[in-house]
Amino acid sequence: MNNKIEKIQRWMQQNNVDITLISNPKTIQYLTQFYSDPIERVLMLVIFEDKDPFIFCPELEVGSVKEVGWNHSVYGYQDQEDPWKIFASQIRSRKVPNQVIAIEKDALTIDRLESLKQVLPSSQFSVNAIPMIEQMKLIKSTQEIEKLKIAGKWADFAFNEGFKAVQLGRTEAQVAAELQYSLMKKGIMELSFPTLIQAGAHAAEPHGATSSNKIENNQLVLFDLGTMWQGYASDASRTVAIGKPADKLLDMYNVCLEAQLAAQEAVKPGIKAEELDKIARDIIAKAGYGEYFIHRLGHGLGMSDHEFPSIMKRNKMLLQKRMCFSIEPGIYIPGFAGVRIEDCVYVTENGCQAFTHTSKELQYID
Amino acid sequence: MNNKIEKIQRWMQQNNVDITLISNPKTIQYLTQFYSDPIERVLMLVIFEDKDPFIFCPELEVGSVKEVGWNHSVYGYQDQEDPWKIFASQIRSRKVPNQVIAIEKDALTIDRLESLKQVLPSSQFSVNAIPMIEQMKLIKSTQEIEKLKIAGKWADFAFNEGFKAVQLGRTEAQVAAELQYSLMKKGIMELSFPTLIQAGAHAAEPHGATSSNKIENNQLVLFDLGTMWQGYASDASRTVAIGKPADKLLDMYNVCLEAQLAAQEAVKPGIKAEELDKIARDIIAKAGYGEYFIHRLGHGLGMSDHEFPSIMKRNKMLLQKRMCFSIEPGIYIPGFAGVRIEDCVYVTENGCQAFTHTSKELQYID
Repeated sequence: MNNKIEKIQRWMQQNNVDITLISNPKTIQYLTQFYSDPIERVLMLVIFEDKDPFIFCPELEVGSVKEVGWNHSVYGYQDQEDPWKIFASQIRSRKVPNQVIAIEKDALTIDRLESLKQVLPSSQFSVNAIPMIEQMKLIKSTQEIEKLKIAGKWADFAFNEGFKAVQLGRTEAQVAAELQYSLMKKGIMELSFPTLIQAGAHAAEPHGATSSNKIENNQLVLFDLGTMWQGYASDASRTVAIGKPADKLLDMYNVCLEAQLAAQEAVKPGIKAEELDKIARDIIAKAGYGEYFIHRLGHGLGMSDHEFPSIMKRNKMLLQKRMCFSIEPGIYIPGFAGVRIEDCVYVTENGCQAFTHTSKELQYID
Repeated sequence: MNNKIEKIQRWMQQNNVDITLISNPKTIQYLTQFYSDPIERVLMLVIFEDKDPFIFCPELEVGSVKEVGWNHSVYGYQDQEDPWKIFASQIRSRKVPNQVIAIEKDALTIDRLESLKQVLPSSQFSVNAIPMIEQMKLIKSTQEIEKLKIAGKWADFAFNEGFKAVQLGRTEAQVAAELQYSLMKKGIMELSFPTLIQAGAHAAEPHGATSSNKIENNQLVLFDLGTMWQGYASDASRTVAIGKPADKLLDMYNVCLEAQLAAQEAVKPGIKAEELDKIARDIIAKAGYGEYFIHRLGHGLGMSDHEFPSIMKRNKMLLQKRMCFSIEPGIYIPGFAGVRIEDCVYVTENGCQAFTHTSKELQYID
């Protein structure tokens, strides 16, 4: 049995949980190394308090499960079969009395819980496994941090290639294409999210998408990107200058940079998540841009680019060594311009280390 | 009010539903044109039986919602706020008595339903909106079919570019990189799923991923790919020959092709979904490969590459004009080789039309 599954079994003993059902594909990967997005098909890892776990998956995934070295049982079902009946018969065959079942309440949908209740009518699906799993994932191991560092190096590579691809008259999408092709040529086929490149006023929509807008002179251009490396994500943002942006744009940039640097500098074990947010937010507010910083300072990072916890007001969590999260203040003035500067970091003994090292001094691209 | 929302309101009247909550981002796009993946944040479309609908979203999406031309209310929340409280106060302000609420049971997670129940304790979340929404999406409009055709043309373009990129000694990933770069250069930035290229025995894992395996002589190489066009997906597979594959490989190919052509030829209004599956499966079984065809014949296609319904045994649904789905038999012999041939089609008056037109005769690449 691997250590992580044993840890869950200890939690189950302490909490009188007989069975834990893991249905989030990323959590299954975290616990077993096996990753697949089953889309509408059913994929579950089933952990018993005192029996061998098993993976239940579509028949066409059984080979892949075995290939990652999963040395417990794996059961497949065919498309025309009812997965829930087969699943329930495997559960019943273990003869676990009084089944108290823990589920991932943020991953399991209502219809699936209804199906489970129908085939396992005497079980209680009363326990939420999420707080325990979030705690497990929160503090990264040395190996995990190594993977996050490599993912970060590829993000740095991508910035460099992206900045080289910027040309007046090229579209945001064309720059993204060159950047992503550079990564793919190096074998980096998976991004943690679609590369976001936004020029000028378009960057004022922090959740917009890369468009066919052309890059013009004297603009700021925002890059937000991330890669995957062996199941771990990077996520970083830089904003660069084309030509000679107006003073107001430079001011926005400098304020955002000051906020980012101050918050990153303040990271250390024992500081509260909300304190970091306040440090950045106060600097931006004092400069008169408070109303334009419309999101939290950051989010956790690990096997995906958005993880627990949020670095924001009201989160009083004390940061600990080897927690990983983003620090990404932004200033977005609708119809005018947007700036965001972001590094993800891991907490060290006395401070933090960033996963990305691309310069945060404003870079001018001719 | 747009037609689709009015249609839902009529369904609500007939089924005594006061409020419908739409939480699947693709369904929100289908109904409003606005698309965003909010990840862990909350995004909902709220439809009232006799009042104006509203969109509830993260503050940083409000601008994008307005940009798509949504001319009803939109309410944002900031990251540090409790979204559910704000959401509930908007619902309460409408003063709808006896709230029977319909939800998307395949999209809403347990924790979100618990949050909703907490802030709206007198509401009943008893109705599943999914069967109604699936029915709505099932028959495509002429405009939707036009978009699916364009998405299909880009899939054909991608095959052509991918086949040109195949070279002995190149890896699967390198071919995928060239293919995807060709698409991006044409402005096609979004795929409906990551391009799958598998050579030789690797293709026997129908849900494996593109790897760094090298393409060798006398192999079959499987391509499965899809693009997005204005919110609509394509999905198609072809298997090509490198050099002179052994007779056994050619036999697998020919059997799979015969099955694919026969099933596609049989599509017409009034035939049952399961009959198409049987036509293809019988051909493959008769040739001795029955145990190696381990998935359903096909799946629905529309705003995503896997939609309702499944074309498989036990699905007695009668096919109707303008339904869209894949026909993709496959033969996978573990450790040896895999073949899949797939077109997505739409049902016409008397038969069907494919969205992709790349030749299905075995193509030899030197």
